[in-house]
Amino acid sequence: MERIVYLNGEFIPESEAKLSIFDRGLLFADAVYEGFGIIDGQLADFKGHMDRLDRSLGELNIPAPMDRAEMLDVLMRLIKENDQREGFLYLHVTRGQGDRNYLYNDSYIPNVFAFTQGEKFAVDAPPKLVSLASVPDIRWARRDIKTTNLLGQVMAKQAAHEAGAYEALMVDEDGYVTEAGSSSFFFIKDKVLYVRPVSNEILHGITRQTMLRVAEAHQVRIKEGIYTLEEAKQADEAFITAASIYVLPVGRIDDVKIGGDEAGPITSSLRAAYLETARAEFPEV
Amino acid sequence: MERIVYLNGEFIPESEAKLSIFDRGLLFADAVYEGFGIIDGQLADFKGHMDRLDRSLGELNIPAPMDRAEMLDVLMRLIKENDQREGFLYLHVTRGQGDRNYLYNDSYIPNVFAFTQGEKFAVDAPPKLVSLASVPDIRWARRDIKTTNLLGQVMAKQAAHEAGAYEALMVDEDGYVTEAGSSSFFFIKDKVLYVRPVSNEILHGITRQTMLRVAEAHQVRIKEGIYTLEEAKQADEAFITAASIYVLPVGRIDDVKIGGDEAGPITSSLRAAYLETARAEFPEV
Repeated sequence: MERIVYLNGEFIPESEAKLSIFDRGLLFADAVYEGFGIIDGQLADFKGHMDRLDRSLGELNIPAPMDRAEMLDVLMRLIKENDQREGFLYLHVTRGQGDRNYLYNDSYIPNVFAFTQGEKFAVDAPPKLVSLASVPDIRWARRDIKTTNLLGQVMAKQAAHEAGAYEALMVDEDGYVTEAGSSSFFFIKDKVLYVRPVSNEILHGITRQTMLRVAEAHQVRIKEGIYTLEEAKQADEAFITAASIYVLPVGRIDDVKIGGDEAGPITSSLRAAYLETARAEFPEV
Repeated sequence: MERIVYLNGEFIPESEAKLSIFDRGLLFADAVYEGFGIIDGQLADFKGHMDRLDRSLGELNIPAPMDRAEMLDVLMRLIKENDQREGFLYLHVTRGQGDRNYLYNDSYIPNVFAFTQGEKFAVDAPPKLVSLASVPDIRWARRDIKTTNLLGQVMAKQAAHEAGAYEALMVDEDGYVTEAGSSSFFFIKDKVLYVRPVSNEILHGITRQTMLRVAEAHQVRIKEGIYTLEEAKQADEAFITAASIYVLPVGRIDDVKIGGDEAGPITSSLRAAYLETARAEFPEV
């Protein structure tokens, strides 16, 4: 059976969901997006994702296509139409369509679509360790805006995949880790949780943000700073976070084994605490 | 009357030309493009643009959607269907469509579309001087691949437009000019033609490449090098080149006037010589 997707006010079979070839998302990657985790048929971190979407839209002067209550209705109906219990909900807003012209003005009407996608992760099962391969971070200077200019990440993740790894770990010209290909990177050394602070150099991960709140509530000592690949490789534990994967333990970076054969104790407890917090904060419908 | 556009083997009215929301060009900007100048109802620099398209596709491991003779047939038919005498022909190749996954494999089938677009330039009329506004170059490290990751250029050109200029002049962190927003930048000082050499830092402009060949044939001395914004502002003449605009004289960079009130003598003769060469090299159909 086909998925039902949302496109500009309609809930339609995925094979019918099409946009004009003159959409600026297609011509210029003039578009932003959000990915929400779905847990128990509910949206994780709804407020955080919507705050970030508003910020991304604001940075590009794209008007918000609808208010937050309407958006919640749309996304919850999409989950119900597809009977999605866990996985990923993708929401995309382009500036709109018109003759090909780099310049924009107020006449564009945003195109909006959303779809659910299943993932292989059973939320509450103990996750397998994943491996990371380091790659150069070749992206632009506005990584803080969640746009569809994602070819740098496609290339990074494809290179990591071809090196036998699950995810890329992106490293800047000076040897400092920025973030993972499509997830935030954390590591633990001597019971301290290390993570890079938000700036234009990394995406402001929403699962990352909630994780920091969770870690603080659990009295884990946190050091936000800039760390080299070599420092990361000396970690006792490491994990990555993203809406589509929640929290996954890292068992290897390049040729260096991190921790033991299972998720470390701090990673495991933070993962459980993250899921508990996400579940406690589902939006009221 | 609606334009006729090309989409995956069909010539159809523009309002019917649509792609799936699962196209990777839309989701990841996983797509490349070319823009051809149309002069006298013919394609300028066909070979150069096709060579660059092949290189862009190769860098991203996207298979060529058809051979060069077939592509020429498609593009010439598109020009005829729209009775386009001058202007711009846009050609776009995406990797194809599928579930949202950063990783790709050989199973994707490229989506291809093309359309013509009129421009306001009368090819042989003396062109008006245009103004440039300098903006920071915030793009990624693979500017040599002609991809649709163009939001950096959209932002640059919009900022220049809001500053009252026709085009952006992008400047790197060290104060060196890279290129214009969607065109190549040249300047002339003491009868020497200055231009930045090709590298990963700039697009390998096809009109730029033909212009250098033309300048050499006309015994103009050329210095390829890295030049600061301040050096560019001391130019006697300056111009920009791109398939959609051919060659346009620059009369101002920020608050600095360049040359006199009309295109300078070297710019004018190189522009005429470029058009002559482009016309002499139309592909045989």
